[in-house]
Amino acid sequence: MPPLRVAIVGLGTVGTGVAKILLDQSELVARRAGRSIELCRAVVRNLAKQRDIALPEGAITDNVQSVIDDESIDVAVQLIGGITPAREIMLNLLGAGKDVVTANKALLCEHGDELFDRARQAGRTIAFEAAVGGGIPIVASLGQSMAANQITSIEAILNGTSNFILTEMLGKNRSYDEVLREAQELGYAEADPSMDVNGTDAAQKLVLLVRLAFGTKVSLAEFLCQGIDSLELADLRFARELGYTAKLLAVAKLRDGQLEMHVQPTLLHHDRPLTKVDGPFNMVAVDGDAVGRTWYAGPGAGQMPTASAVVADVIDTAIGRTALTFSRLDLWSDRPPVPLQPAHEMTRRYYLRFNVEDRPHVLADIADVLGRQEISIASVIQHEAPEIDVPGGKAEAIVPLVIMTHRTSEGRLRAADEQLAQLKSLRAQWVRMPVAD
Amino acid sequence: MPPLRVAIVGLGTVGTGVAKILLDQSELVARRAGRSIELCRAVVRNLAKQRDIALPEGAITDNVQSVIDDESIDVAVQLIGGITPAREIMLNLLGAGKDVVTANKALLCEHGDELFDRARQAGRTIAFEAAVGGGIPIVASLGQSMAANQITSIEAILNGTSNFILTEMLGKNRSYDEVLREAQELGYAEADPSMDVNGTDAAQKLVLLVRLAFGTKVSLAEFLCQGIDSLELADLRFARELGYTAKLLAVAKLRDGQLEMHVQPTLLHHDRPLTKVDGPFNMVAVDGDAVGRTWYAGPGAGQMPTASAVVADVIDTAIGRTALTFSRLDLWSDRPPVPLQPAHEMTRRYYLRFNVEDRPHVLADIADVLGRQEISIASVIQHEAPEIDVPGGKAEAIVPLVIMTHRTSEGRLRAADEQLAQLKSLRAQWVRMPVAD
Repeated sequence: MPPLRVAIVGLGTVGTGVAKILLDQSELVARRAGRSIELCRAVVRNLAKQRDIALPEGAITDNVQSVIDDESIDVAVQLIGGITPAREIMLNLLGAGKDVVTANKALLCEHGDELFDRARQAGRTIAFEAAVGGGIPIVASLGQSMAANQITSIEAILNGTSNFILTEMLGKNRSYDEVLREAQELGYAEADPSMDVNGTDAAQKLVLLVRLAFGTKVSLAEFLCQGIDSLELADLRFARELGYTAKLLAVAKLRDGQLEMHVQPTLLHHDRPLTKVDGPFNMVAVDGDAVGRTWYAGPGAGQMPTASAVVADVIDTAIGRTALTFSRLDLWSDRPPVPLQPAHEMTRRYYLRFNVEDRPHVLADIADVLGRQEISIASVIQHEAPEIDVPGGKAEAIVPLVIMTHRTSEGRLRAADEQLAQLKSLRAQWVRMPVAD
Repeated sequence: MPPLRVAIVGLGTVGTGVAKILLDQSELVARRAGRSIELCRAVVRNLAKQRDIALPEGAITDNVQSVIDDESIDVAVQLIGGITPAREIMLNLLGAGKDVVTANKALLCEHGDELFDRARQAGRTIAFEAAVGGGIPIVASLGQSMAANQITSIEAILNGTSNFILTEMLGKNRSYDEVLREAQELGYAEADPSMDVNGTDAAQKLVLLVRLAFGTKVSLAEFLCQGIDSLELADLRFARELGYTAKLLAVAKLRDGQLEMHVQPTLLHHDRPLTKVDGPFNMVAVDGDAVGRTWYAGPGAGQMPTASAVVADVIDTAIGRTALTFSRLDLWSDRPPVPLQPAHEMTRRYYLRFNVEDRPHVLADIADVLGRQEISIASVIQHEAPEIDVPGGKAEAIVPLVIMTHRTSEGRLRAADEQLAQLKSLRAQWVRMPVAD
């Protein structure tokens, strides 16, 4: 069999990792692919930049069009992030008859339909294991290994930066801002970390998993998405006191024929395996109606883990497995998808933290508002003296009041929010986190 | 596309689960396979037996030859356990041109070469996801998703019965015998549980994983295999006191170009995710040189989890993916395999528990023997009064003495064992468990 000719489009951190595996492990890769895989082109933005990898003579170029036009190239590893110009480039690569392997979750989340259609028209494929969960084979597991199941639930930690920050805050008793700064210095967080810490990155990945598992096409605006950027150390500590760990959890669950879907800081009971996933790791817990619950965990990002997933896709494409998988993928399919459950109908238990003035009748006022919304209180914590940071106001006069509710609806909580806003004894914003079932 | 015609050979617990999915979820299965999958034959031992499933008219038979001879059958789901007559039947099914899907780990472990050769000669395939880890897609993950990696380590809980027993012993403070009896009543353990509790079942599965990951062909006699059947509650409790959990751990690790391989009750530090796997669940932790560490967990046995894996293989076979995977499988391959490390050269830390007479110089005698073998002691526990069961002897005169060693070799421990056997102050057998790195 002739060698498979590959071009890397976007030689950043992950692209360099892919090049390293293809060059340094060429024998192992060839044995597993059944043919050699030849890295013949790498498209970069800046030709002058020093790189710690020796590419084949003449492979490096800043002209992506030269890859699109090169009919000898079989597979394009498309690693340019974001939407523009990645979308245009990917459409052109597919149109020019190249199979594409990509890690760009934002692009697939927003323009998946268009890209998949273009691939089908051109008789080509798109493989995207690396777009979700880094080195964890969750796309393959949902698309192939769980094929005998109706998926009923996905609960996942999908953003390594957020998980690293939460782990460090609680473990080292430090504030969000301190830990974020450290994460940026260590390279765990980008210079602009907003997509990671505001939940967008996890939400984009959840959109892809939901499409695979439930056939439902969801846009980011259609479901609840909150990040960890408003979380305080106090809440992580209260959660621990109550027997829970707060994680940025991406959830999609079948509920009476509808799909409950959200990305939020969520409390998980200590005995849940998801609470054991620390630092930059990811974990996906998947329920299927036949198999029951399965878990997949590993490094959710990083150069070599992501490159491992990309090269596995390249090998699959070389073998021909990608073509078979792509043709059968229950994704961007036309069967009736599961509709989204409206946010106000979602029912969960909730953690609430108020900053209240330390005077009589405050608890009664709050309990009265909750009671009028038929929100039932399961437990309360109010310590005598606040030993932890409390934002705003005079610390000595303001105390945190933590309430765990029984199961209630998001709609009732929102109605309560409006009434709580009228209470003069409440300070600042109160914090609300759902509890995972 | 014409329907794929399937026969189930062996309609036991798992076979009935496979039939249920193929019949009750036929629409979902057809959508994912791209063609309908028709269950047309089910071979049983006893035609008269009542079954809680309605098979198609005329499908049930006690004549396996009628399936072998039926040229219209494409795929045989071979679920007869053990070696005889399963081996003969599988050879004949392959020879008659049927693709085979199986969950029979014992057969593949012992006769994999012959069966794979027969499949290749006949141009057919063998799929066996269900043979290891029940509903966990570990075969697919090793064979496909980790393809860009040299696997460097596998550590796994592969026997659900043993894990259930260990969990119950510690959780309910009960003896091995009591818990085993309960497990048999609950159906978690077979009437004859010996293959589960003596480590054979886990060892057979490890043999298959090692073949996939390292290309090494190992027979059961070639590596250390111990079960949980000689473990006592006392050891689980001492381990917990020291910060460890005892699990029946199957291990294969690259060490300087050799393969350290064993199945043994092993202490794992509490912060290891493997210690969070309780009851009948399985978990496999896999390290790859590119991806780092990944984990796969789920139900390791049971009707529907195993059936889920079998049907996923049937769907893969229908799509044609199995044929591509089988042709590329790094299994039963001819490349130079990684050789086994001789058992006496393996170095680990060890947990030792002695039952000693409560009189002067006992610790000195033991420490002297260990010292002469250059086995260094890391920590010691000896409680004043034994509050736990101690086998043999008069309980008031015999106390347990627990020693944790620094890293040393299995060879040195064996030499020490011989010298310890000379000590008059030691009672019964002493217990030795390695500690996972």
